Amino acid sequence: MVRRLFLHHARRRLHSGTASSIPLSTPIFAIFGANTGVGKTLVSAGLATALLSSPSPAVSSVAYLKPLQTGYPVDSDASFVFSRTPALLRAFPPCRATRLIASCRTFFQSPAVEAKAESLHESQEKVVTYGAGAAEQTKVLACCTAYAWREPVSPHLAAEREGMAAGDDEVKGCVEQWLLEEGIGEGGEVWKILETAGGVASPSASGTLQCDLYRPFRLPAILVGDGRLGGISSTLSAYETLLLRGYDVSAVILEDRELSNDKFLLSYLRNRVHVLILPQIPEDPLDDLTDWFSESSSIFIFLKDELQSFHSRRIERLNSMQRKSKALLWWPFTQHNLVPQDSVTVIDSRYGENFSVYKIKDKMLIPQFDACASWWTQGPDSNLQIELARDMGYAAARYGHVMFPENVHEPALHSAEVLLGGVGKGWASRVYYSDNGSTAIEIALKMAFRKFSLDHGIMASSENSTRNERNIQLKVLALNGSYHGDTLGAMEAQAPSAYTSFLQQPWYSGRGLFLDPPTVYIKSEVYNISLPQSMQHDPQTYGFFSQAEVFCKTRDKTFAADLYSSYIKQKLSEFSLSSSSEHLAALIIEPVIQGAGGMLMIDPLFQRVLVSECRSRKIPVIFDEVFTGFWRLGVESASELLGCLPDIACYAKLMTGGIIPLAATLATEEVFESFESDSKLTALLHGHSYTAHAMGCTAALKAMQWYRGPSTNSNLDTDHMKLKELWDGTLVKQLSSLPNVKRVVSLGTLCAIELKAEGADAGYASLYASSLVQQLRKEDDIYIRPLGNVIYLMCGPCTPRDSCTRQLLKVHRRLCALN
Amino acid sequence: MVRRLFLHHARRRLHSGTASSIPLSTPIFAIFGANTGVGKTLVSAGLATALLSSPSPAVSSVAYLKPLQTGYPVDSDASFVFSRTPALLRAFPPCRATRLIASCRTFFQSPAVEAKAESLHESQEKVVTYGAGAAEQTKVLACCTAYAWREPVSPHLAAEREGMAAGDDEVKGCVEQWLLEEGIGEGGEVWKILETAGGVASPSASGTLQCDLYRPFRLPAILVGDGRLGGISSTLSAYETLLLRGYDVSAVILEDRELSNDKFLLSYLRNRVHVLILPQIPEDPLDDLTDWFSESSSIFIFLKDELQSFHSRRIERLNSMQRKSKALLWWPFTQHNLVPQDSVTVIDSRYGENFSVYKIKDKMLIPQFDACASWWTQGPDSNLQIELARDMGYAAARYGHVMFPENVHEPALHSAEVLLGGVGKGWASRVYYSDNGSTAIEIALKMAFRKFSLDHGIMASSENSTRNERNIQLKVLALNGSYHGDTLGAMEAQAPSAYTSFLQQPWYSGRGLFLDPPTVYIKSEVYNISLPQSMQHDPQTYGFFSQAEVFCKTRDKTFAADLYSSYIKQKLSEFSLSSSSEHLAALIIEPVIQGAGGMLMIDPLFQRVLVSECRSRKIPVIFDEVFTGFWRLGVESASELLGCLPDIACYAKLMTGGIIPLAATLATEEVFESFESDSKLTALLHGHSYTAHAMGCTAALKAMQWYRGPSTNSNLDTDHMKLKELWDGTLVKQLSSLPNVKRVVSLGTLCAIELKAEGADAGYASLYASSLVQQLRKEDDIYIRPLGNVIYLMCGPCTPRDSCTRQLLKVHRRLCALN
Repeated sequence: MVRRLFLHHARRRLHSGTASSIPLSTPIFAIFGANTGVGKTLVSAGLATALLSSPSPAVSSVAYLKPLQTGYPVDSDASFVFSRTPALLRAFPPCRATRLIASCRTFFQSPAVEAKAESLHESQEKVVTYGAGAAEQTKVLACCTAYAWREPVSPHLAAEREGMAAGDDEVKGCVEQWLLEEGIGEGGEVWKILETAGGVASPSASGTLQCDLYRPFRLPAILVGDGRLGGISSTLSAYETLLLRGYDVSAVILEDRELSNDKFLLSYLRNRVHVLILPQIPEDPLDDLTDWFSESSSIFIFLKDELQSFHSRRIERLNSMQRKSKALLWWPFTQHNLVPQDSVTVIDSRYGENFSVYKIKDKMLIPQFDACASWWTQGPDSNLQIELARDMGYAAARYGHVMFPENVHEPALHSAEVLLGGVGKGWASRVYYSDNGSTAIEIALKMAFRKFSLDHGIMASSENSTRNERNIQLKVLALNGSYHGDTLGAMEAQAPSAYTSFLQQPWYSGRGLFLDPPTVYIKSEVYNISLPQSMQHDPQTYGFFSQAEVFCKTRDKTFAADLYSSYIKQKLSEFSLSSSSEHLAALIIEPVIQGAGGMLMIDPLFQRVLVSECRSRKIPVIFDEVFTGFWRLGVESASELLGCLPDIACYAKLMTGGIIPLAATLATEEVFESFESDSKLTALLHGHSYTAHAMGCTAALKAMQWYRGPSTNSNLDTDHMKLKELWDGTLVKQLSSLPNVKRVVSLGTLCAIELKAEGADAGYASLYASSLVQQLRKEDDIYIRPLGNVIYLMCGPCTPRDSCTRQLLKVHRRLCALN
Repeated sequence: MVRRLFLHHARRRLHSGTASSIPLSTPIFAIFGANTGVGKTLVSAGLATALLSSPSPAVSSVAYLKPLQTGYPVDSDASFVFSRTPALLRAFPPCRATRLIASCRTFFQSPAVEAKAESLHESQEKVVTYGAGAAEQTKVLACCTAYAWREPVSPHLAAEREGMAAGDDEVKGCVEQWLLEEGIGEGGEVWKILETAGGVASPSASGTLQCDLYRPFRLPAILVGDGRLGGISSTLSAYETLLLRGYDVSAVILEDRELSNDKFLLSYLRNRVHVLILPQIPEDPLDDLTDWFSESSSIFIFLKDELQSFHSRRIERLNSMQRKSKALLWWPFTQHNLVPQDSVTVIDSRYGENFSVYKIKDKMLIPQFDACASWWTQGPDSNLQIELARDMGYAAARYGHVMFPENVHEPALHSAEVLLGGVGKGWASRVYYSDNGSTAIEIALKMAFRKFSLDHGIMASSENSTRNERNIQLKVLALNGSYHGDTLGAMEAQAPSAYTSFLQQPWYSGRGLFLDPPTVYIKSEVYNISLPQSMQHDPQTYGFFSQAEVFCKTRDKTFAADLYSSYIKQKLSEFSLSSSSEHLAALIIEPVIQGAGGMLMIDPLFQRVLVSECRSRKIPVIFDEVFTGFWRLGVESASELLGCLPDIACYAKLMTGGIIPLAATLATEEVFESFESDSKLTALLHGHSYTAHAMGCTAALKAMQWYRGPSTNSNLDTDHMKLKELWDGTLVKQLSSLPNVKRVVSLGTLCAIELKAEGADAGYASLYASSLVQQLRKEDDIYIRPLGNVIYLMCGPCTPRDSCTRQLLKVHRRLCALN
């Protein structure tokens, strides 16, 4: 029997920018219009009738939702479907005797509606029986309107004029609740139809476009096209608008106005989407459309079949993905034997900070917070994502990709200007584009080596460059725990680790002097500095009560600065005594935070002293900002935290908003000049096919400006040009006090937690955190990816603080339970 | 005085897919409609009036073109502008007494028009004088219709029904001629307005959409929005359709229908484009609109000012780009001192195979054939480019980027399937994604080394992996002249060259045994095989009369095969005798063509023998197909030409259609299995942030299928699954006979020509070809980028043969002249 009607208590509020859970056991479609007045509601009613009268698939109920209705109650699409569908079923009854329970409800009415409307419109129900004999089956048609306004204008105007706002979060909360409502009626399938208002890009009550408002659900779209003169254009444009939001269009259906629009669309859209044509809709307002529906019935049955098959194909594809991925793919950094098929995460889409993940058991799409920021790349909130999508389409259409050397195009030039005026401000004058962090590092090293060689007379003249260098070995000065990428040149600049074994890279030798750095961490609410063993002049660790103290430049005058300085001097002098042919030709550091090394915070004072010692020896300084750049640590460049500048710096990841690969190596004019001569052979001969590709540069331009724009990034403290606190300070301190937590690092968009672990449980290969990670993924909907026994949460520069707090609370709860 | 009217002889035909020359000294705008019937022609007339009456800027003439007109002569937009503008000028005369010469012409009329139309519509002219006293100035208004049909339906229907076709090339030829017509009238600016038909995506006579038809010109667009109910949606969708074709929208202007559409659009489009609102258009057909125009005049003046400023900003930006690029950018592979500012190529856009290049002196945009295929990446014709743009928007909106390891998403999985069913067919079972050719190679080497080590007992067990390997050196077997990328790991696998000097990469040591390969080339119409000195058992060179003979597998039984085999065996045995700790752990070759090495064709027999020798020694075989893959050499994989298969192969460049960076390393299941164990430490620990990013995989999917689809690639010989001949065989042979040509290699999409040069003129650093290259770029509109004294032409897999022939003829002509 009927258990309950849909949307009885639509009070849920969906968090801003959050994706939503979507059941896929039920076929759900959204009806969009190429324009207003193209017959969306007729399609809804026709489809509902076809479904309810269908012997196959046996449909037990149809739920129809009109989230936003204006012109109410004169215009009420839910009421139309409610009243017409039973009538049509009576004309074309199902083959078995059937009882239909039909209902119609409206949840929120504007004061103007309430003042005038007859109350019967709020809630109606009727039971109708078709066919001969006793009813053999019961079916349900539940029609709902969520918000209704009186004036027949766009919802944003109606809401403004009639004084009932309907915020996006409320509307999405309604929709989500409706989606999650269980089926009603007996046996057979439940279908749901959501009908949007106006055209695809018509404003909702808040002003958000229809296509954007419902994007978190990414329901397969039925596009009702326009059969009128000009309708080909508006149908195709509407189709493209849906694609630009990442929707899949399951069918295009339009009225025949004898202009053959359907024929053209059929041919243009072939291999992409089915195009169906409906008979011309009678214009006489007194026509009850029974004849029209009768004429159209075969089309609606065809539409129903198409949608059924679309839905089945979708589920089939989703169900097969884990198996196929195990068979065909080769994941990086992954021991395939340790990944059971059913633990493969099937990502159906992304919406801002969230993945939409398919759960095969539940046949559900579940949102998961992308807490690894997809390898630390992610910047987009859901608004920026759409902006970037539009920009990517534009850049691809305008430029595709064009050759870069000796050429210039606007995106490359403009993003260079923004880079030099942002992260490069005050020091850099040149931008060298490449593909990823690793290539940016290899380029930086080549730049530094050339500069060093010229400064130190290693190459007296380029002409004789092969004469004397054979015995000369250039090395880097770097820190233990560092990581700069996986190509050999970048690896050579890092200390030995699990990544660099013979097993992994037989060619690795580690061409550097690697120092042990002092680190900073929070434990039991105190900021501790941990000195490496090799520096234990003083056995005590230093404590601070705030991060500000750690970064304070007055520490330059303290004992710690002297300690660091003499340690560094000693190491450098030992090195130079050990060999006359070896030179430290570059300093390379990740400023403040070593990422892949385990989210270690290096004492900024130590790095500042190190830079200063190198500068006095004319050793070029490289900052690897691939991870730390672009607000990752709360400021645009981590050099602001360090209080000193590099000669060369590398950027990638967040630079493009995390949407497309691109890297940049920035350098001072002095570094650039060391490559100038009259010979091509002294030029920097390193490049990649897609150097400065237009789409990448376009994305970088948009993302860099978005992060630093007060109107686009509400996390920005514009007075100090830094991000406000994103990870709740009190909660972070509480975390640091848990007994199973060894240390916490919280800075900008990063909150890292090292779990206490011993022996094989510690370090990169550790599986210690696995069960916790699986819990967080499966039960808390946080997509965590640990670094051994270090787990971390990472958001984007624009992620709302309350979203961060929600995730942090979940982690805190889990860790408490673990204790 | 008036010299001539626009478009006197519109007979030019623009070659298919060709971009067009566009003068930028003249402001030219295209008027697009959000829908049909939104008032495009009123905007044209209003703008023309505002321009002709304007004291600033002083406009001497306005040319108006309606390329496609239906409903003619009842509807004639040109005729409306022709008749209304003088009338409006009379009502609001310019401040100085002015004589206006107005004309209206129609060039091609369908038979149905000719049968019925009054002839006066074909050509009209009138002279009107405004203002008191003798006319102080003469202005010109020239209105043209290119093609006119009688029925008031979409041009594609009218063309079909009335029997006058108007092919895209003809229409574009008309438009180009109109664009290039010189100004008329005295002093002051010439403005041109092109009015499209219907909405942005309405079909033209051929069925090509308006936005696609005019894309080669990429004129700044004026979008006439829709003020009606639903008009916000159709205006925004139309705007997005224009962006998805790479258009810049200069202004949105729409009628006020008291729905405040303008207010919403103004707010939504702020910071992007100006939105202007016109008074409501009277619906009475008898209204001559004089009052309306009068009311609108200030809006049209504002529009004119906006457009003026849009145009000036555009020119300013274009003019500044050479200077700025010299100051801020750092080009790869470029000695900046050798690039004079005025030789920097300013690329404004790309259309299929052509750049649109800005010539600062001429204030022109000129199409240049991208003969270097933008570092060998390019596959898209103009249709594929638009398809890819739409796909990029969709993928970015649906996925942005999502983390890959242990995850799966549809584009990564689907493109893996297509890779394994295409280039990997018959051997590969796993796909490892990365960013570019260089990273794909580093990954391939790591795979090969592991497989070799396991097969040869170098690592008895992974647990003890650090015990024995310290003395063991793994090296590659490779060929001199090879190139595999610029990151250190890839470089180490190639022989010493200009790229690998100490000056360039102090860490390079060249970890390989590099053999001299025999090469094949065409000279004086004969295919010669040139044996390296170290193999000169027989002093003769072998000649063939066709390429088929060179690739014929019967050569396996010839003396040459024995010669190669014994040469290889000797080298391998010398190597193994020289050191017991060094192992050749991988063979790495570019199959058939060595690209960066100078477009050298290696004797396929030699490579086949080499692969066979390695296989028998259990040395894993890597094919570097970064350059040769995906039809570059006329077949999907160059291994089809070689007639043997690799264990590992690398792909990039053409894989994504050349639109976005992505690489893939394919491997056999045996190679994959050598990484399996129960420890994470034996997994392949190499990855990049954007591994398998959704946009890249989506592009790859579309491009790979496009190239091999008979309906999308008309170059395909589907019986043999290879490309038809693209570079005219006779012309290639003629080229090979020129005295200044040393050798020619022509295969698939590549035609390379080595110029005779001696000493410093030969080789990578040579500037020998510079003047020829400059001529080809500047006078022949071919963007050539030489490899030292080797010049080459490269097209895409779908480039029409006649376009190739045109380019080849130009090169032939230049080389003849050089003799």
